[in-house]
Amino acid sequence: MSRSLPTKKEFIDGILSGNRMFLSRAITMIESTKKEHHELAQEIVEGCLPHAGSSIRIGITGVPGVGKSTFIEAFGNHIIQEEDRTLAVLAVDPSSSRTKGSILGDKTRMDTLSNNPKAYIRPTPTSGSLGGVAQSTRETITLCEAAGFDTILIETVGVGQSETAVHSMVDFFLLLMLAGAGDELQGIKRGIMEMADAIAINKADSGNENAAKRAMTEYKNALHLFPPTESGWIPKVTTCSAYHDKGINDVWDIIDEYIRHTKTSGYFNNKRKQQAVYWLEESINQELHRKFYENEDLQLMLQKFREQVQRGEVSTQKAASLLIDKFFNS
Amino acid sequence: MSRSLPTKKEFIDGILSGNRMFLSRAITMIESTKKEHHELAQEIVEGCLPHAGSSIRIGITGVPGVGKSTFIEAFGNHIIQEEDRTLAVLAVDPSSSRTKGSILGDKTRMDTLSNNPKAYIRPTPTSGSLGGVAQSTRETITLCEAAGFDTILIETVGVGQSETAVHSMVDFFLLLMLAGAGDELQGIKRGIMEMADAIAINKADSGNENAAKRAMTEYKNALHLFPPTESGWIPKVTTCSAYHDKGINDVWDIIDEYIRHTKTSGYFNNKRKQQAVYWLEESINQELHRKFYENEDLQLMLQKFREQVQRGEVSTQKAASLLIDKFFNS
Repeated sequence: MSRSLPTKKEFIDGILSGNRMFLSRAITMIESTKKEHHELAQEIVEGCLPHAGSSIRIGITGVPGVGKSTFIEAFGNHIIQEEDRTLAVLAVDPSSSRTKGSILGDKTRMDTLSNNPKAYIRPTPTSGSLGGVAQSTRETITLCEAAGFDTILIETVGVGQSETAVHSMVDFFLLLMLAGAGDELQGIKRGIMEMADAIAINKADSGNENAAKRAMTEYKNALHLFPPTESGWIPKVTTCSAYHDKGINDVWDIIDEYIRHTKTSGYFNNKRKQQAVYWLEESINQELHRKFYENEDLQLMLQKFREQVQRGEVSTQKAASLLIDKFFNS
Repeated sequence: MSRSLPTKKEFIDGILSGNRMFLSRAITMIESTKKEHHELAQEIVEGCLPHAGSSIRIGITGVPGVGKSTFIEAFGNHIIQEEDRTLAVLAVDPSSSRTKGSILGDKTRMDTLSNNPKAYIRPTPTSGSLGGVAQSTRETITLCEAAGFDTILIETVGVGQSETAVHSMVDFFLLLMLAGAGDELQGIKRGIMEMADAIAINKADSGNENAAKRAMTEYKNALHLFPPTESGWIPKVTTCSAYHDKGINDVWDIIDEYIRHTKTSGYFNNKRKQQAVYWLEESINQELHRKFYENEDLQLMLQKFREQVQRGEVSTQKAASLLIDKFFNS
């Protein structure tokens, strides 16, 4: 069933009044591959930009099985009920690129939160490159902030390349872990632990409390071996049971302390500014990259050179020069 | 004093015969900013490429004070005398970008090695962007391999952005650390520890032996918390005293074991192939990037948009689109 598209002004006014239908349709425009949708989306984002920026942006990661959906549900209900906040939940990993299921593909796993008028849950985009989805997610943050959400949670599965992208669009990065899962490593990709501003060891319940406490000590010791963070913040480790709604307040308190710490030091605003310039340069790089790799005249040549550099038959710089010359002359 | 430039054939023949004068002058061509030098350098690299690739490439990092020059001297002498190998030592960090001194700026700190005919030490390039220096270093590896060096050591200071670049051009990555320096973190940048295939705790001497052993246990425990590496290799931790020439053989044995392990599994060759494609794409990206950011028509516009995205006045994607349009129309 085709619906006529609202105007740019209707979209912007709708979003600023907190209307979810307009918000959802605008996000769909952002994610659309149609040129006219994309152009309209850009104008909507531009119109919302002056009303955005005042939320707390939190990245959350952890492998499937760690209890992310249950945690987000408990965390969301806590900050809405106890902290008088509002929450938008977004995801970065395109579901097509996942081997394991996305929590956000299935809103029904966050029952109470998805029915709460102070929460907005956006299902995972079903396709697209990581670069494209990351860009869309940043624009979606702008729209959600303009719609009045003061807390944005961005979920990622912790096994892919997405964490760096999420890390560079959030104020705070939370890593969910398990204790006593028989494997301390739990499939978390190398480097992710070092990004975390806090680690929460979930499922500290049902006789697992002591194992969780031991894991907490181990992670504290491990984090102690890491170099200090740029913000001067020492990453915290805590335990919680999302299922039994225990320790969720501690996680929020850590985030709150971090925000106050970095706002006082000026790091919060500096980081936001750095992120903006980073994303400007990322957008430029992506666009240059796209134009190059989508150039049909280059495809065969590129494939030939890939094979030749692997066999050591041509230097990467010579191959690159020849490709670039062809690109700018075609 | 001006010297006439050898021909391409003289350069290649000279390098293949192991003549250091030709090798050094060719590396100078690689590092030169003059267009004609650069073009000649490319042809020399192309000519050497079929004779390159058979060395073991080792990255080594550690902050100033960890004893890198002493370690490299002891390590070099060990593998030359005991393992019948030859060694070329290169550096990635441009010295102009360093706040602290480069070991390779001062060959005199590696007395015996710099006078050993089986070793070749190339001082740090004095200027250039990291991307440019990384590219030059890769080409220098090719020339050193063609000149017959079967072990290449690439040094970096462990405090900057260089480690990722080095990590993607070597087979093995060694991190030098200290124990009992009062600060376990020692200024090593976050993420570097997770790249290490081995950690060697240096200066395990002069009453510091027990502290080094304790540090070894701590790092082993910390590494245990990291996820498994792609190669299936479990990073090793050892202690050594480069000054007293103790434990250097253990470091070499670890490297040797790693190389055998990854050659048997096929990981060694796969990683080399992946690195070649990575550097082809890096070369393309750098060249696109250079052409964009050096475009004089864009400078003012770029500066204006940087400020506007920081203030949230324009979206990064709109700014990027306008810049890209101007780039391709100018």
